[in-house]
Amino acid sequence: MEPIENLKTLLYQRELDAVVICKPLNIFYFSGALVNGVLILTTGENYLFIRRPKERPLKLKSNVKSIYFDSLKELSQHLNIPVRKAGFELDSIPCSLIKRLSETLGVSDILDVTHDIRMIRMVKTPFEIEKISEAGKIVSKVFENVPKIFKDGMSERDLLIELEYISKKEGNIGFYRMHSFGNEASFSHILQGESALISSYLDAPTGGPGISNAFPQGASLKKIEKNKPFTIDVMVNFDGYLADATRTFVWGKVDEGVENAWQRLYEIFLRVEADLTPGSIPENIYQKTLELAHSLGVEHIFMGPGKDKVKFIGHGLGLEVDEYPFIAKGFKIPLNVNSVVAIEPKFISDEFGILGLEDTFIITDNGPVSVINFPRDIFKL
Amino acid sequence: MEPIENLKTLLYQRELDAVVICKPLNIFYFSGALVNGVLILTTGENYLFIRRPKERPLKLKSNVKSIYFDSLKELSQHLNIPVRKAGFELDSIPCSLIKRLSETLGVSDILDVTHDIRMIRMVKTPFEIEKISEAGKIVSKVFENVPKIFKDGMSERDLLIELEYISKKEGNIGFYRMHSFGNEASFSHILQGESALISSYLDAPTGGPGISNAFPQGASLKKIEKNKPFTIDVMVNFDGYLADATRTFVWGKVDEGVENAWQRLYEIFLRVEADLTPGSIPENIYQKTLELAHSLGVEHIFMGPGKDKVKFIGHGLGLEVDEYPFIAKGFKIPLNVNSVVAIEPKFISDEFGILGLEDTFIITDNGPVSVINFPRDIFKL
Repeated sequence: MEPIENLKTLLYQRELDAVVICKPLNIFYFSGALVNGVLILTTGENYLFIRRPKERPLKLKSNVKSIYFDSLKELSQHLNIPVRKAGFELDSIPCSLIKRLSETLGVSDILDVTHDIRMIRMVKTPFEIEKISEAGKIVSKVFENVPKIFKDGMSERDLLIELEYISKKEGNIGFYRMHSFGNEASFSHILQGESALISSYLDAPTGGPGISNAFPQGASLKKIEKNKPFTIDVMVNFDGYLADATRTFVWGKVDEGVENAWQRLYEIFLRVEADLTPGSIPENIYQKTLELAHSLGVEHIFMGPGKDKVKFIGHGLGLEVDEYPFIAKGFKIPLNVNSVVAIEPKFISDEFGILGLEDTFIITDNGPVSVINFPRDIFKL
Repeated sequence: MEPIENLKTLLYQRELDAVVICKPLNIFYFSGALVNGVLILTTGENYLFIRRPKERPLKLKSNVKSIYFDSLKELSQHLNIPVRKAGFELDSIPCSLIKRLSETLGVSDILDVTHDIRMIRMVKTPFEIEKISEAGKIVSKVFENVPKIFKDGMSERDLLIELEYISKKEGNIGFYRMHSFGNEASFSHILQGESALISSYLDAPTGGPGISNAFPQGASLKKIEKNKPFTIDVMVNFDGYLADATRTFVWGKVDEGVENAWQRLYEIFLRVEADLTPGSIPENIYQKTLELAHSLGVEHIFMGPGKDKVKFIGHGLGLEVDEYPFIAKGFKIPLNVNSVVAIEPKFISDEFGILGLEDTFIITDNGPVSVINFPRDIFKL
């Protein structure tokens, strides 16, 4: 079934006259084309109102009718039915646009359909699974290149620039989109030692100093040191779809303390992986993970520094990096076949800095399938 | 005067109890730190409520008091005054967040301060001018590298990847932020021939096919051809601040038709540049530009293809690429000293594809000063 049919079902269930979609990424998801405009589903036709582009052929899904417009006022003229009760993406769309649209369409009853759309997007189509798998292959290639390009004297940022360059040549389109307001993601967090102790505005277990107060996250200008672990957390966008993974590297030797901590991190990773089966409740997986971290004596270094610890062990991803499901407290929707999650246990510690491991998994009837093909051990350079 | 004092003046003028800022880039602009949180100006103190990061030292401006919080409910406990009438950034903030915040604070009267904040940000501080100038130096270096890295067989995208890589090594932080909802900008549009005829969802004179339906703009995989102009439109972010410029290149010879068209484009560019003086009315500059394009017989190829022509000749920039002032119809606010504008006449034509020229200018008492240092002629490779 096409995703737009799921949205249509919602329209009937909620007795809406229309669902009004303004977020370009959702327009793309449901209609097949990323445009500046408004997608309006009614009990009759589905209209894609396009402001831009007009001079470009678009491949729209067959159940979407396109209409070009210049001013929002024109929209209601094309709709054959009155729109009193309508669903909007209240979590994503600026107030002023919702106000203009609802006034133009004569909407008197506004419902928020953000959660419903996220629920639809949570289960990936075969087309999406293919793209995420391709993104995973590029992520794996990025890791494969680390031993080839790593050099004495490189800073965290030097390594970042080289790896992003390689990813682009492999097809990474370089956009790392997020749903949640106020967050910004980038290609990679490459962090070692004290860099990892610094958190950021981003809701992620790693922050990092970055090189600018205007983008205060990620790699620093600090040179990568010997015999000390560092993590490379990579995101790649292939044809709109993301894969996300982390590996831990050491230039030189791994000392015993680090090796001991690593074994615990890996145990947590495997435990979560084993639980990624259809029907599992994310909140329960998360709770068990916290208990395991506690029993392993690592809860104080688990998932971020001090008060900036994050309250999840995994996150859904696809067109955005913060999609449903979250493997987190409060997320009770059972895991579905064809959902995609990144699982990312991380330790942040004054002693050794950082350890991390992350794979992007597709949930199947036979359990989780990782889209990443690179050894999970600490990689020695 | 610090920008936050201008916002405070607004608060008094409009008789507001508070101005509530949620957009991280505006929080950064007014407080000095980019955080996940809420900046609330009251008639008394200015409070920066910080959700994340908590474990990171922040350099805040002296007139901002920081308070850490976890839940929005805590905010009203810290404010000593009732907040009935408040200003919000209605053009940028999702409806659901405005709703939660206004309920929490007990706001009954919401005013939109988007325009007012854009007015404040329109006039740059010396700090900002310095950053934009540095960004301009990196843009110039990118252009200087074109003859060094251009090779037979390169596609538009190959060249893009190489130039972005160079820009990152020169300090480009790689974020190209935009104010207007639904727009997305990237490092560069590199377009030749038919690529330039394709418009995109982005409100810009150039679109381009891109390499993905999920990011349908910019460079294609088409190889760059001989004896045919192509444009490189580059944006660089240095420490948060953007500079934007375009140059036209030809690999081989420039034919007479292209040279004739170029002379007209250059005449338009110089005419607009001459008008960039404090007190000039942007709408008048734009109108004169249209008249000049008409008298030069180029209006049909001016500023984009067919129905996707844009209705501006220049745009302000700073932290974002679509700031005030716009050199466009309807923009009547006189140009100010220390405003920054990019002027970008472009021709899109079936005959030769594309010609373009763009510089980022600082408006001074002595006229416009470009931050770009690279020859303006068609550059022959």
